[in-house]
Amino acid sequence: MKILAVDTSSLVASAAIADFAEDEILTAEYTTNFKKTHSQTLLPMIAEIMKTLELDGSEFDAIAVAAGPGSFTGLRIGSATAKGLGLVWDKPLISVPTIDAMAYQFYGSESLICPIMDARRSQVYTGIFTFREGTEFEVLMEQCPLALEDLCNELNARGKRVIFTGDGIPVYKEKIQEMLTVPHSFAPAHMNRQRAAAVAALGAIYMREGKSEHARDHGPEYLRVSQAERERKEKQNAESYGI
Amino acid sequence: MKILAVDTSSLVASAAIADFAEDEILTAEYTTNFKKTHSQTLLPMIAEIMKTLELDGSEFDAIAVAAGPGSFTGLRIGSATAKGLGLVWDKPLISVPTIDAMAYQFYGSESLICPIMDARRSQVYTGIFTFREGTEFEVLMEQCPLALEDLCNELNARGKRVIFTGDGIPVYKEKIQEMLTVPHSFAPAHMNRQRAAAVAALGAIYMREGKSEHARDHGPEYLRVSQAERERKEKQNAESYGI
Repeated sequence: MKILAVDTSSLVASAAIADFAEDEILTAEYTTNFKKTHSQTLLPMIAEIMKTLELDGSEFDAIAVAAGPGSFTGLRIGSATAKGLGLVWDKPLISVPTIDAMAYQFYGSESLICPIMDARRSQVYTGIFTFREGTEFEVLMEQCPLALEDLCNELNARGKRVIFTGDGIPVYKEKIQEMLTVPHSFAPAHMNRQRAAAVAALGAIYMREGKSEHARDHGPEYLRVSQAERERKEKQNAESYGI
Repeated sequence: MKILAVDTSSLVASAAIADFAEDEILTAEYTTNFKKTHSQTLLPMIAEIMKTLELDGSEFDAIAVAAGPGSFTGLRIGSATAKGLGLVWDKPLISVPTIDAMAYQFYGSESLICPIMDARRSQVYTGIFTFREGTEFEVLMEQCPLALEDLCNELNARGKRVIFTGDGIPVYKEKIQEMLTVPHSFAPAHMNRQRAAAVAALGAIYMREGKSEHARDHGPEYLRVSQAERERKEKQNAESYGI
């Protein structure tokens, strides 16, 4: 089973190709974290690794995509790209929760794994995970938008060591250090952002569980309404109340 | 501190750029595991990520290289490339032990981490590592060539859970499962081969500890003599004994 995976849920753009035969193996991964928009980088990155591996689209079994939460624009670019390729190549899509894929980088860890993405408005997109006995991936708290204080209370109540990862770290590191009473650390550079290879690896598990969908049915999961939608709704409410 | 890192110690060719400022971050990584030789892929991969990030060589503070053990040809290509770029750009080199960088992917794990690279002649290049309390990287057995049986005895004696990673897995998985009496698992696709990002992250620690060298002084650490050297020596010995 050959999977193409993409993650554009944050500033990071990442594409990977992995093969899940008897010996499962990453055959290519290309990740950048730069100011260019994903609409400029993602397709050229996919084209680049497919060219290097001398692959064409017909050889994939599925396309895995980090389906949200994350940046609204980023998610739309990732999902639209995966959807377009899935329709053209006639391949199924696998929607992988962004936060789960971030946590899946910590295979082997029995600590609590807590990805945090800056969701603005004093919230983070987060979740709580661990690997039972170092190997069994467990979702202890499903991905959701949460106030940082509520997250810290939740982690303190669990009383276990925590590893943080994600772009929420530079924003909230100091506050976390103030609020957290349990031992904790922040993941090093090679593990503190999104990776399409983790999306591929988790996607392969979902695929085996039958959790794939037709490209036409796919859509990103924002978990919150966008600012534009929120403002429109507030305006509508204000109008209906005659404010 | 900006580091360019390369790893060509195995079939994998990987290049990464990471920035170790207050918020340490991976800015690009490009990894391929394909039949093309590293002499064809490595420099174009480095050029590709530097172009995407709009960087030139003068902006790096150091070049980190997976310095061995590994494939003799692979190591020579990686070291020669790093050395050439270091001389042209006038930047120091950081030699990172290949096996240590492989283990460093498992930040968070309190299990024993055991990378195995197929070293032929019934040996593996290996080492034993852990993260004390999930965060402090510890070298429990330094990288070395070892017979698989001796490695399994060593791991059994330690009595702890083991995570294996590396290209020795497809070759020795069955034998390991026969010989090992402690709980063990094999890393999933996104963590079971070399990654230049881990070389960069470990390289940054070495750099801060002053463990860098002038490019002209760098050379790979093979840990064993090559087949060609071994055969020449055997021939010389045979001749000196008049065989």
